[in-house]
Amino acid sequence: MRAVVLAAGEGRRLRSVHPGPKPLFPLLGLPLIVRTFCTLREAGIADIVVVLGHRGDEVRAALGDGSRWGVRVTYAESPDWEKGNGASVLAAAPHVAGERSWLLLMADHLVTPELVRRVAACTPPEGGVAVGVDFTPARVPDLDEATKVQTDRVTARDAADGGAANQDTRPSVVAIGKDLSAFDGVDCGVFHATSGLLDALRACAEEGRHTLSDGVRRLAAQGRAVACDIGDARWCDVDDPAAVRHARRMLLEQLPTPRDGLISRHLNRKLSVPISAALARFAVTPNQLSFATFLLTALAAGLFAAGAFVAGGVVAQVASVLDGVDGEIARLKFLRSRFGELFDAILDRIGDGLLLAGLTYGTYAATGSEWALLFGALALIGSPLSMMIKDRYRAMTGDLYRPDVHDGWVRYLLANRDGRMFVLFLGGILEQGLATLAVLAFTSLTQAVVRLARLKKFL
Amino acid sequence: MRAVVLAAGEGRRLRSVHPGPKPLFPLLGLPLIVRTFCTLREAGIADIVVVLGHRGDEVRAALGDGSRWGVRVTYAESPDWEKGNGASVLAAAPHVAGERSWLLLMADHLVTPELVRRVAACTPPEGGVAVGVDFTPARVPDLDEATKVQTDRVTARDAADGGAANQDTRPSVVAIGKDLSAFDGVDCGVFHATSGLLDALRACAEEGRHTLSDGVRRLAAQGRAVACDIGDARWCDVDDPAAVRHARRMLLEQLPTPRDGLISRHLNRKLSVPISAALARFAVTPNQLSFATFLLTALAAGLFAAGAFVAGGVVAQVASVLDGVDGEIARLKFLRSRFGELFDAILDRIGDGLLLAGLTYGTYAATGSEWALLFGALALIGSPLSMMIKDRYRAMTGDLYRPDVHDGWVRYLLANRDGRMFVLFLGGILEQGLATLAVLAFTSLTQAVVRLARLKKFL
Repeated sequence: MRAVVLAAGEGRRLRSVHPGPKPLFPLLGLPLIVRTFCTLREAGIADIVVVLGHRGDEVRAALGDGSRWGVRVTYAESPDWEKGNGASVLAAAPHVAGERSWLLLMADHLVTPELVRRVAACTPPEGGVAVGVDFTPARVPDLDEATKVQTDRVTARDAADGGAANQDTRPSVVAIGKDLSAFDGVDCGVFHATSGLLDALRACAEEGRHTLSDGVRRLAAQGRAVACDIGDARWCDVDDPAAVRHARRMLLEQLPTPRDGLISRHLNRKLSVPISAALARFAVTPNQLSFATFLLTALAAGLFAAGAFVAGGVVAQVASVLDGVDGEIARLKFLRSRFGELFDAILDRIGDGLLLAGLTYGTYAATGSEWALLFGALALIGSPLSMMIKDRYRAMTGDLYRPDVHDGWVRYLLANRDGRMFVLFLGGILEQGLATLAVLAFTSLTQAVVRLARLKKFL
Repeated sequence: MRAVVLAAGEGRRLRSVHPGPKPLFPLLGLPLIVRTFCTLREAGIADIVVVLGHRGDEVRAALGDGSRWGVRVTYAESPDWEKGNGASVLAAAPHVAGERSWLLLMADHLVTPELVRRVAACTPPEGGVAVGVDFTPARVPDLDEATKVQTDRVTARDAADGGAANQDTRPSVVAIGKDLSAFDGVDCGVFHATSGLLDALRACAEEGRHTLSDGVRRLAAQGRAVACDIGDARWCDVDDPAAVRHARRMLLEQLPTPRDGLISRHLNRKLSVPISAALARFAVTPNQLSFATFLLTALAAGLFAAGAFVAGGVVAQVASVLDGVDGEIARLKFLRSRFGELFDAILDRIGDGLLLAGLTYGTYAATGSEWALLFGALALIGSPLSMMIKDRYRAMTGDLYRPDVHDGWVRYLLANRDGRMFVLFLGGILEQGLATLAVLAFTSLTQAVVRLARLKKFL
């Protein structure tokens, strides 16, 4: 499937914060239109037609053939872009001539791969259009400026309850426009279109109307515009400084993962997400961040070994916070890779080991107690078991190991990495090396034994 | 799909080694017919009709409803079993009346799940039969006693080269019997049958001929018997003491896995396979064996810690050999489980850690050298990385990590478990604790770094 991305408009309301062309406005390290490219790629769409208008040469020079982001970009020029965005859609007509249907997106709308997948799965009616509709208008920040949609959704549902099974029960678009007084949804700027939309836009143009909404309205009057419910997928029209702040928040809120442990969720992420937001504008890669965090962890291990427990504990906790940043930058800038995932996991395990070895040596040197050697060895043995069990579970079943589902009460043991690092931090600043090693040995081995016992019923 | 298993015959030639009914002859810990049950289950077939004859009550009492082995067994009595095995097949007729096609197997033939899958995938012609044929007669041990098959295979191939694409190009059975002078294959005792086989057997019975071969011969004369090439799948007709030895060898040869490291392949398996063969008759479970091996490993760790390096090294290597036995027994007795796989992996990692901790402590106590603590810690950090990388690779890609494919020259580092244990053995008997720890630290960390670098191109 091919996608048409409109990048012709002027974006006057963003000029106060960005002097360049609007599609190139950098949002957390990536130009808006590049976010659209990467979102399309993750949704499985790599063939993209970009419609240029205002400062089109600058946009084209910055994007090239799109191969840097794993997509194939071709360009269409819209000489009439100032008339309205319908004219820009028509400029793409030669590029979609052979397609049964295609997607239409706005370069300045932030959307998610999930939203794109939903609209792509929503086949438009013969010669018509499917409009991606957000049926929760309350969550749209700048509702006054949004394009509203009135559908027959309630009626359609009632009909479906008693109606024929084979009938198209998707709601039809009844009215569309910025100034609707009655509406039940908002147009999110993603369309699944056919050549019928082009025909409608041409007919409107002959009557002097040049917006995309005009074309959709015409199809709606013919009963050929359906609404595609985007559910809870998130989106944002990035057209003024307030919307930029909203879009940033939306991107950053998606960074924590459901696999986060307790300390990570309630402490580390609160710190790492702002750090990632600040770092996003720089060209640093996730793997470079993984390695830098590893060096910091090694430094903490050295401080422990030298007997500087307080400094070691603080540096270890800083490294633990930064440990989230590589993954956050990878997700934020579409830089995730399997190699990066493996690299980070192995560096984490070596870092864990160095910290425990450092604390063991430092404690033994300070106290002369052979208990330090025993607890240190047990902690070194137990500490990697957490990841091992999760990885082997995932390898055997193909499913992610979910601490919230599989772990039961052991998830409060703080035996995942975020928890173990926090224990090292507390133990360091309280200068309780021996107790820290004992706790880490006990919790990690207990977690492994309990997990084994619990997994018997899941495997 | 349903399977009919003939268990009616007398098995006179096995009486010298087994006084009970032949289907219950125990081969490496499992009665012959139970091996057939488990093989069918692994091939996805759980509905089994067992035809009883000679000493049928004893067979039924031993097998029950089959639920112990995860199958559903129903029974058919063959009053005429002494006339021939065709009469026994007819006894199962009411049980397969509703089936489009079904499998027919012999309780005394050892086959593999792969062989069953191949014959099951080979649809018989309308009203006919597909005969599982081994086209390598040279590998059949007791060829004189085997049921030979003559097919039109060469002709069929020539026809296929220039012939019509839609034609059934499987070879047809031309002749079948023990005394064929010309033949190109051997009947392996697995058939994919339709009700046409029952009709043919009834017609033969009226003429006084009562063997299964008589029925197949009749269908062959009508052009309704095709040969299903079993390829290199292995099988064995277990009908006399020589065949029993052959069958044992065949089962034991399948125990090593392609994931075995160098030491495992060339040393450990040579010892563990005979041990598994001897242990198979006992009711010990793979998980019990995993735990026993773990205790032995812990003993070796204690010996190292106490400074008894030679004893520690020897016990460690014995444990390493026994470490193969749990998996071998699991494969040999159809007892594999995901939980068992995880349990063994985690115990192995804890065992590894205890051995290294023990050797570190023993070496430090004996020499007072802090290098022992350093190398010991690095070896403890490096040792689990081997499994971690393999598991994470498998978790991310869904494919097994193959040292022969992915490792390149690092597979000669002996940094997999079998290699690391062998290094501990050598280091123990040579009483070189410090050097051993240094070698293990170096090889395991080097393997991890090289693997990471190499995996960049596989991920």
